[in-house]
Parts: sequence; C-alpha cells; structure tokens
Amino acid sequence: MNAPARPHSLTPELALREVPQVLLDALNAHFGSRCATGLAVREQHGRDESVFDVPPPAVVVFAESTADVVAAVALAAQYRVPVIPFGVGSSLEGHLLAVQGGISIDLGRMNHIVAIHPEDLTVTVQPGVTRKQLNEALKSSGLFFPIDPGADASLGGMSATRASGTNAVRYGTMRDNVLGLEVVTASGEVIRTGTRARKSSAGYDLTRLMVGSEGTLGVMTEITLKVYPLPEAVMAATCAFSTLADAVNTTIAIIQMGVPIARCELLDGNTVRMVNQHSKLGLAEVPMMLMEFHGSPAGVQEQIAMVQDIVNDNQGHGFSWASTPEERTRLWTARHNAYFAGVQSRPGCRCVTTDTCVPISKLADALLESVDEANAAGIPYFMVGHVGDGNFHMGYLIDPNSATERETAEHLNGKLVARALRLGGTCTGEHGIGLHKMDFLLTEVGTGSVAMMRAIKIALDPHNILNPGKIFSL
Amino acid sequence: MNAPARPHSLTPELALREVPQVLLDALNAHFGSRCATGLAVREQHGRDESVFDVPPPAVVVFAESTADVVAAVALAAQYRVPVIPFGVGSSLEGHLLAVQGGISIDLGRMNHIVAIHPEDLTVTVQPGVTRKQLNEALKSSGLFFPIDPGADASLGGMSATRASGTNAVRYGTMRDNVLGLEVVTASGEVIRTGTRARKSSAGYDLTRLMVGSEGTLGVMTEITLKVYPLPEAVMAATCAFSTLADAVNTTIAIIQMGVPIARCELLDGNTVRMVNQHSKLGLAEVPMMLMEFHGSPAGVQEQIAMVQDIVNDNQGHGFSWASTPEERTRLWTARHNAYFAGVQSRPGCRCVTTDTCVPISKLADALLESVDEANAAGIPYFMVGHVGDGNFHMGYLIDPNSATERETAEHLNGKLVARALRLGGTCTGEHGIGLHKMDFLLTEVGTGSVAMMRAIKIALDPHNILNPGKIFSL
Repeated sequence: MNAPARPHSLTPELALREVPQVLLDALNAHFGSRCATGLAVREQHGRDESVFDVPPPAVVVFAESTADVVAAVALAAQYRVPVIPFGVGSSLEGHLLAVQGGISIDLGRMNHIVAIHPEDLTVTVQPGVTRKQLNEALKSSGLFFPIDPGADASLGGMSATRASGTNAVRYGTMRDNVLGLEVVTASGEVIRTGTRARKSSAGYDLTRLMVGSEGTLGVMTEITLKVYPLPEAVMAATCAFSTLADAVNTTIAIIQMGVPIARCELLDGNTVRMVNQHSKLGLAEVPMMLMEFHGSPAGVQEQIAMVQDIVNDNQGHGFSWASTPEERTRLWTARHNAYFAGVQSRPGCRCVTTDTCVPISKLADALLESVDEANAAGIPYFMVGHVGDGNFHMGYLIDPNSATERETAEHLNGKLVARALRLGGTCTGEHGIGLHKMDFLLTEVGTGSVAMMRAIKIALDPHNILNPGKIFSL
Repeated sequence: MNAPARPHSLTPELALREVPQVLLDALNAHFGSRCATGLAVREQHGRDESVFDVPPPAVVVFAESTADVVAAVALAAQYRVPVIPFGVGSSLEGHLLAVQGGISIDLGRMNHIVAIHPEDLTVTVQPGVTRKQLNEALKSSGLFFPIDPGADASLGGMSATRASGTNAVRYGTMRDNVLGLEVVTASGEVIRTGTRARKSSAGYDLTRLMVGSEGTLGVMTEITLKVYPLPEAVMAATCAFSTLADAVNTTIAIIQMGVPIARCELLDGNTVRMVNQHSKLGLAEVPMMLMEFHGSPAGVQEQIAMVQDIVNDNQGHGFSWASTPEERTRLWTARHNAYFAGVQSRPGCRCVTTDTCVPISKLADALLESVDEANAAGIPYFMVGHVGDGNFHMGYLIDPNSATERETAEHLNGKLVARALRLGGTCTGEHGIGLHKMDFLLTEVGTGSVAMMRAIKIALDPHNILNPGKIFSL
C-alpha cells in the first residue's frame, strides 16, 4: 500500500496478465460476434489521445446492456484479469491503455436515453450516450446539458474523468451534475448510488466517489444527470488584448465581481495565429477572449455592461457581439478550431496537453510564466484556457520520434504543475490522472491521501481487476 | 460485513467499550484541564437534538489544535476506543451519541478563521467556527457564506452531515461548497484533500467522501470553503395560499421555469398558527410561502415579476415585499421562529423531525399526503419546507414519556420515507443518517451500496474507532 508512485515516465510500466483461452471461450459464448480479438479492433481500443505506446487489450467485448457488463466483469473477476471500460477513446492521459492487458468493454452500444424528466430537470442515460446525442434528444423539451469538454465524449467517460469544459464556470463539472449512478462493482454486482432528488445526506457519497475514479472502482452502466432550461437569451462575445496579462486580469476581475458568465475562454496570440492559418479567419494575432452570457434578455445585457467596463479598464478592444446561434458559432470558430489548428500546424506531431487549475487570483502568475517558459524552450505550442475556472491547457506539439522534444514537453509540464501546486492549485482541472499524472497526484495530495485512495481501491477491488495501474501504483 | 442494518429502533443498541484508566491518564497528561470526566460535561456532550437516551461518553477532551486531535485519535487508536467529534451538538439524528462509549472530542475551541481569500472567493476555517461567526468575519470583505441550516451550527458539523438549509436551492449544499479538508485519519495521521482551485480531476474525490461521513472516516480539522460576493440586491417576499396544494404547485413552477430563486420556503397553516401564538404575528393561518431573491436590481425585479405571475396563476394572495435587512427579517420572522414556536406549542414535548427530499415534480404528492396522514393520526406537528429543493420537514411533537406517541411518530416517519423513496427521493435531504435512519438508508440504497460503504469504513478505520455505530451497523 505504500509503494512509491510510478515515476513520471513516458514508457508506462507493463505488467501484462494472461487472458486464458477458457476465459476467451466464455466471453465468446456470452458475446458471440460482439467479442473481438482481431488486431485492428484491439488496437482501436488500446489507444487514446495520449502519447503512450502500450500493447492493446487481449480482447474487446461490445456491451449492449448492464447484464453484458455484469457478465464481462464477473468473468474478469473469476480469472483475475483486467477489465477496462471504453467510451469513445477521447481521454488524454492514457486512462484506457491496457498496461496490464485484459478485456476492453466497449460501452458505445449502451447509448440509450433511459428517461427524460423535464418536470424535474433530470435525465437518465446509458454510459455510451454522448453529450451531443443527449443535447439533440433534449432539444424539443427546451432543456440542455451544459458540460462541454470539446470532444463529443461519452457521458460515461465524462463521468469517469470528472470532466468539465467551457461551461463549467457557470454550471459546474460532472461532479456537480451527476445525481446518481448504476454501477457494476468488481465482483459483478449491480449497485445504485444517489436518487433523483436534488440533494441527499444519505450515507457516504458513493456517487462522487465513482465520478472521477477513472474506471478503477466500478463500471458505470446508468447515469442520472441534472439538465437545465435553455436560457431565454444567449449572447456571445469576443475581444482582443494587447497583452496576455491584460486578458488574464480581465478574467480575474469578471470572476471576482461575481458576473455569472457562462463561458470565459482565452487563446494567446500564438494560438490565434495557428487558427488564422488553419481557418483563414484574419483575426488580429493577439490574445483573444471568448465569452458567452446566459440569462434573461435584461440580465444578459447587465452582464455584458459589467464585462465591457472591465474589458475597457484592461485595454481590451475589438469587441464583437452575437446573439443568433449562427453568429455565435462564427464568433467562436477560433476557439472550436484551436486544438485541430494547433495539431495541424505541425504535420505528424503529437500533442502533450497540460491541465493545471489554480485559484483565480493566481491565474496570471500560473499562465504568463508557463507561456514564457514554452517560448523560451522554443517548443511549438498552443494555449487555450477555461480561464474563468483558473484552468488552462498548454498543448506542446512534439515530434513523437524525438526523445528530446518529448523530454522538453514533459519538463515544461513538470515546471507548470509545480508552479500550479505552489499557487494552491491542482495538476488536473478536468482531464484526470490516468497514467501520466501519477507522480503529480502524489505531490499534490501527499502520501497519506494516496494511501487512502489505495485502501479504498483494495477494499472495493481486492483483485485489482478494474482498470488497474491507473491513478496510483498498486 | 453483511450483518443486517440495525432495526429502526427508538432504543439504540449499546455496545459500550471500556475506556481504561491508562488511557484516561494519557489524555489527562496531554490535555490537562482540557480533559473532563465530570458527569455534567459528559452529559452535555452525550446528547443532541434527537430523542434517544444513551449514556454519555466516558471522557471529553477540548481540542485547540490539529495536534490535539492527532493526540486524542492516536490514543483512541492505541486502546481501540471510540472517538466522537463534537461541534455544537445541533445534529438531529443521534450522530454524536456515544453508543459504544469512548471519547468525545469537543472541537468548539478550534474556532479560528485560518485565511480569507476574497480575491479567490475562498476561506479556510477550523471546524469549530460557526456559520454566523464566519459571516461576521466576512462582512467587511463584501462576501458571505450562504449555507444556513437554521441552527448556528459549526462548519465542521455542517460538513460532517452534508448540511444545507434555506439557501441551498441557489447555492448548493455543503457538498458543493467544501473545496478541501485537513483530516485526521483513524491512525492519527493528518491528510489534506482538495486544493483552493475551483475544480480538479486529481484522483478519488476524498473531499466529497468525507463530507457527509458523519465523523466515521476521519476528524476534520480544517475546512476550505467557497464564499460568494454579497448580492447587489436582495428582496424578500411572503405570500399566502388558500390551499397547501396551491403553494406547492407554485414552488414546482418556479423551479421548473428556472427562476434562480435564493430561498423558497413553505409553512403550512397549522405551523403559521403556532407561530402566531408564539410571536403574536397576526398572520392569516393559511399556507405561507417565503422567498428571497438575490441578484442585480434589474435581475431581482425580473425574478419577482416571474414569480408574481406564477403565484397569481395559483391563487396566491397577500403579497409582501421587503428590501432592507430589517424589513426582510420581519417578513421572515415566521420562518425563523417556526421550530421554536412548534416545540413551545406543546410544553415538555420532544420533536421527531423528518427530512425527506423528492424530485420537484413529486413534491405535491410527497408533502400533501404526509400532512394528511399527520392530521389523520391526530399528532401535533409543524411543517417547514425548503420546498425549492423538494425537501421538507415534519416536526412531530410528542410526549417523550408516551411510548404510543413515539411509535405513532415513527410510524408516520416510516410511511413518509417509504413514499419519498417510491417517488424517486431520499430519506434525508440534509440531516444525515446518524442512528435514526440506518434502516431507511438500507432501503434507499440497497444492501450492495451499504456493503460498499462498510468496506470503505473497514478499510479506513479497521478498528472501528471513529464514531462507531452510525450510518450502518458494523
């Protein structure tokens, strides 16, 4: 229980466990054509958006029901073989890599919306439902689900990593928006956590324990979420700043004044340049803030007036406003395209993404120094920030074949995380620990807290079959 | 681990563990005059607002620092004796009763505000700081802490029970407002959970696991909380309804429309009558809604206009509005005095308080039937509701010497909880499980989830010294 955390390595430690033929036979018997051992399918389920090279899982099963998940987990438990839930594969830190081999359970076919309760502002979904699919289904009811991590991730994956994204500054993260779960435990038992009530003091908060546990404590098979009435008025805005410091100070003031802003994003000038190249936008290549306001028409106007004053105080300029969905989308194009523009600015590169989050007053210290360091290191990067939360991402664009560049990116990430922790922040605002941040977690929370996490893991998964080798070493 | 839950009994099962003289000597050596074994002090620490009769703890120590808590817990661990955190004793379900004997740690002297970070909207406090004390300290910074459970509870106690109260409909509960903790574990180790960042995906959410764990997983010694800018405008309102159904339907519509109301409370006519008798208010003895609106001046006016329309649609009348603090207090007198007015309406009575919370669309079903049942049973009661959350409290006013009345109250509570669970709700919105709701918890979450809670408890507190005998049997 007190083993040191895995070092912050680019070569994950493998401890492959054999998947015996008798287990494969049993999976075949249950899943039939939904059990796949072909290399292509396995490889597709053995990689995510991280930079790690790990052999794929031994077998992939496609679950269509909770009973399927129970069957797979029960067999994994019987043979003490790892079992790794798979959504759409958009996680960033190696969460789903089969470092100990085993079974990947693809939950993508569990994509039914179980219930929509507009009268209670709740929905219940299977884990394979994606956020866009949910919002499509909600459209006619005048409701929406706000959490938007960029990728069209599955709600199971978003719950498992405690995801958030651009709307979290107003609507919170998955932590705040999951009301309850159906979970298959390590022994293959089905439990329920939470209810559809808005609040509860009924015992330990198993819902919150499962949210963010990255598949290591159970497989989520049903998720009950809060949803929200579509705001009466939505306004989007962008504006430009001469310096990154001015943009960051604008953000800090908006949050400190308590403006209930719905989105508050930032790109640095370097990233705007990449977006211009990618999408021919012709934007001024200076730091750019992107905002969205939700509320009543008068409330939105009030928010805008307050923000405009703050922006003016900080030498912002080039304000653009938009209220129709089409105009808003156009205005936000730079933000939507930033990741791809960044990655495509260097053909063949891989992206090492950082994810620190700091108390809002420390955002300038955290962000400006990190940008300066990246510039000094001469590594190509893009920078996007959910700055209203104090959360920003540097995307270091490295040649995957260059050990030097990988080391440089990791070194910059290490310095950036150390700075965030020194400033009272966290190594990960929304991406999770996975394989990549295990040593950062240890530094952040200390050996005692990691020992407590391990104790919980051992208690709930004594044979370490649920996505083993993630979050902490065991 | 699979022992049945304790029956829903009025006579808690005692399993007293001896506190040996050598332990008392060691506590005396450390705490000196802050270690008390006199009956009066022990009795004061051996009762809360519940109806249970349990012998007091063997000894009370008054902690003044984390080091004191470490010393007490380490000694308790060494001698395998229970240790029970004590705040102000305002819990309602027997949480702090020494059903297995042991040491009460009074945290009331750990009442320092460690840090106020107005620039980040966070504060860090010791667990003995009460909510009113915190708000007094925040006054000059233009901030406030919204969670208001009625009693001037300690923030440690409020965290331990996942408390909420009148403002939760807008600001959430302690679950949403605790950012991080310092905790003394069962082995006497000090750990930290969370950071001052607004969000994090760093490993298991130990903060949320501790919040609501009722002192059974650790003793909180420092709490970092979100605070909020004082709203620019605050308006209070009351109005009256001819029927309880009209009042409840008004509430449901307000929530479904997404009005960002800050407080939304309800008293039934019977309770207004008690308040009139107690405080000579001369209010119409019909159902009464009490509301508060926070925001910009224009935003508050918008909310009021929407609510007024909804109230009119539901035959509400007698609207009163107030904006100054004094007028708001006057308007809310009925709500503030409801508990005492209820209890004092029957001299010598004890109050058995219920705490169900249901999805908002089910509030009418849950509340109206419960009131009808209480009336049919002929038991005196008051009813107050944080109805905006779907949460309401029946206070059955029983003669503590009448076994029949106690049984009637418990019977009504049982029916009310069964109804809430049937409607998708919870047995406790904000008071916690304690001794009183252990069987309800089992019914609500099922044996599998309670087994998971037990497994966590055993993993983190293998000798069962931290407030044993609460939430579930062990």
